[in-house]
Amino acid sequence: MEKTPYMSLSREAAAELKTELEKKYAAYVSQGLKLDMSRGKPAPDQLDICEGLFTVISKNGDVSDVSPDVRNYGGLDGIPQMKALFADMLGVSTSEVVVGGNASLSMMFDMVSRSVTHGVMGNTPWCKLDEVKFLCPVPGYDRHFGICECFGIKMIPISMTKNGPDMEAVKKYVENDESVKGIWCVPKYSNPSGITYSDDVVRAFAALNPAADDFRIFWDNAYCVHDLYDEGDKLLNILDECKKNGKADMVYIFASTSKISFPGAGVAVMAMSEANIAAAKKVMTYQMIGPDKINQLRHVKYFKNIDGITAHMKKHAALIGPKFRMVLDTLDRELSGLGIAEWTEPNGGYFISLDVMKGTAKRVHKLMADAGVVMTGCGATFPYGKDPDDTNLRIAPTYPSVDELKTASELLCLCTKLAALEKILG
Amino acid sequence: MEKTPYMSLSREAAAELKTELEKKYAAYVSQGLKLDMSRGKPAPDQLDICEGLFTVISKNGDVSDVSPDVRNYGGLDGIPQMKALFADMLGVSTSEVVVGGNASLSMMFDMVSRSVTHGVMGNTPWCKLDEVKFLCPVPGYDRHFGICECFGIKMIPISMTKNGPDMEAVKKYVENDESVKGIWCVPKYSNPSGITYSDDVVRAFAALNPAADDFRIFWDNAYCVHDLYDEGDKLLNILDECKKNGKADMVYIFASTSKISFPGAGVAVMAMSEANIAAAKKVMTYQMIGPDKINQLRHVKYFKNIDGITAHMKKHAALIGPKFRMVLDTLDRELSGLGIAEWTEPNGGYFISLDVMKGTAKRVHKLMADAGVVMTGCGATFPYGKDPDDTNLRIAPTYPSVDELKTASELLCLCTKLAALEKILG
Repeated sequence: MEKTPYMSLSREAAAELKTELEKKYAAYVSQGLKLDMSRGKPAPDQLDICEGLFTVISKNGDVSDVSPDVRNYGGLDGIPQMKALFADMLGVSTSEVVVGGNASLSMMFDMVSRSVTHGVMGNTPWCKLDEVKFLCPVPGYDRHFGICECFGIKMIPISMTKNGPDMEAVKKYVENDESVKGIWCVPKYSNPSGITYSDDVVRAFAALNPAADDFRIFWDNAYCVHDLYDEGDKLLNILDECKKNGKADMVYIFASTSKISFPGAGVAVMAMSEANIAAAKKVMTYQMIGPDKINQLRHVKYFKNIDGITAHMKKHAALIGPKFRMVLDTLDRELSGLGIAEWTEPNGGYFISLDVMKGTAKRVHKLMADAGVVMTGCGATFPYGKDPDDTNLRIAPTYPSVDELKTASELLCLCTKLAALEKILG
Repeated sequence: MEKTPYMSLSREAAAELKTELEKKYAAYVSQGLKLDMSRGKPAPDQLDICEGLFTVISKNGDVSDVSPDVRNYGGLDGIPQMKALFADMLGVSTSEVVVGGNASLSMMFDMVSRSVTHGVMGNTPWCKLDEVKFLCPVPGYDRHFGICECFGIKMIPISMTKNGPDMEAVKKYVENDESVKGIWCVPKYSNPSGITYSDDVVRAFAALNPAADDFRIFWDNAYCVHDLYDEGDKLLNILDECKKNGKADMVYIFASTSKISFPGAGVAVMAMSEANIAAAKKVMTYQMIGPDKINQLRHVKYFKNIDGITAHMKKHAALIGPKFRMVLDTLDRELSGLGIAEWTEPNGGYFISLDVMKGTAKRVHKLMADAGVVMTGCGATFPYGKDPDDTNLRIAPTYPSVDELKTASELLCLCTKLAALEKILG
């Protein structure tokens, strides 16, 4: 019965269905749920599998194999061993790596901040320009957009296809507008859609001829090793592709171990051409003496090499895979064929993107909230928090338990249906 | 013989003495020394006394008493327990504390950077002003001056007395020049002179009526608990004094555990009025999700409270006290009465400031370097690296061993004499 597309229902049938769903919804509300599907946070059991990280350095002798002493000052760009591990993870050379503190977000913010105050490689500091623009594939990562908002950088939404951003639109802006200085990308298991940029899209990025000398691709490869299945998506190496076109300086790559080891206490990294690194260091050297090298050494001793990371990520996949499948199975069972929702089925990362009927996302969000389930703020996946079609919801399935997710995703389907029927019935 | 002031020596006697000292110097050079007195770095034995910090968190259960989970995202301003510890250390309330990452330098840099890009509490961003000036008590801390240099902030040297900066000069600039936006202070065991600001000086700071609404005192209390002796210098609480005058917003306090626990992996803090914190957080919230909270919890579990810190600092004092005394005894034995040098005798901190005969500091530095002893770069303790009198040398006695220091400080005295005689003989 429910598998009839909602738009094909008679007004009477729609009203009847709505009444029925309202009863079900009231039952949920009376349960007094308290669930959180709002942020891409690892669950406690994912944090527990990293226990060994606490003890790989447990006495003074454990730091003695690294010189200079990791406990002391120094090491602006990280210890060589951590550089090597990240270089392997990102497919770059160690001379193209700068190891940071605990957050790639800070590395991205600081990169933009330096561009604002000091400019990029001798170009005019952005604070001296009338207008600076960034391209923002949507839906995208709210904290990327936040950095732009913080610095008054104008954001231009670029629509996402299943292969990555609409590269014709990207090319048009980047090659014709000198005030376009950057684009935010989460190229693998994109936040929130979960898609991975195709080889063609990566090549199209590397082939850009920017109008601005200081245009940079902000390549946030946050989920580079975050596969849910043995056969993960493959992402072409953007730095290699840029080099082929003589444009090694066009891309900044960011990543971290936040969702490998500990979100609050991992190690972040940026990878880029040596020229870009030299330019960044000119300012960085005034900002810091060096990041926490003991924590870097902990990570090196614990993971040892890229195989260690890969093996560890399989443990994460074993914990969060069932959560993704619970949500996807529920969406499929409850919503497919109704013509009121579309969603992605990612092979990794931390999110599922759900497009509900246009004009109902806020209503779905409110219905969820009223029933005790917190979801990512509506519009958060768009610049300025404004989803023009009021259609996108970001599902973050990792933090709740499988049981909680069962309840939350069934409720989400119910709210999606209810909001659609309210809309249809006017 | 040598105790005759050099200026009173006959030309002949001076020449004779110089020849004698040159021979001694040549003997040092032939030893092929390799010593470093350049940076205020703890020695390896100081790092070793913190071994327990590695194991206070060694299993998942060790983090379970703090909520939300320190291993996960969150906590922009630090965990409550670390705030409480720092509040006790700095004599402020927990609501006046923001806990940072591993470096107070980064907190200072970021504070200036935010002022440049966003302005201070609604005032014009400094990047939109024609000129921004900072007052710089000299000799001072090179990394403070570096931050100004990095942002093109004009530095005005203020001379230091034995009680702190020349407050008449400070008052004149701060109260009459709207472009003066800040002053760098290391109020206790000042870098490099080792002096502590007197109560009168602190009160004079708190009584300032700045011409600029966005003038701030950058109070880098880096050595707040770094006493060499049981009776340490006492520093008046600047935030309390400012509050008495209704100027709670005028001061930013900075500190860290860098020289309490580990320089590369400690915990930094800033303390200030709640209004200043709210203003800073408006930008900080875009820059980071939160600092490393596991490391904060490590520090809390290891030190427990301010008494734990005080007891630990006595261990440091036991290790570095003899080093300070070795240098000071040598300076006294070799140089007093010669009229060619003055130095400070600090009760804490990390430095001894040595003023050699005017116009000879660079020469002394070069003689030391040629003999294999690295000292802090000449002029580093002055804005733009320019010591107008070419007189100041910063001695950092903590890193070398006592034996090495004996050699290095005897050599330093020799070079100081030699350079003075060269100067006198023309």
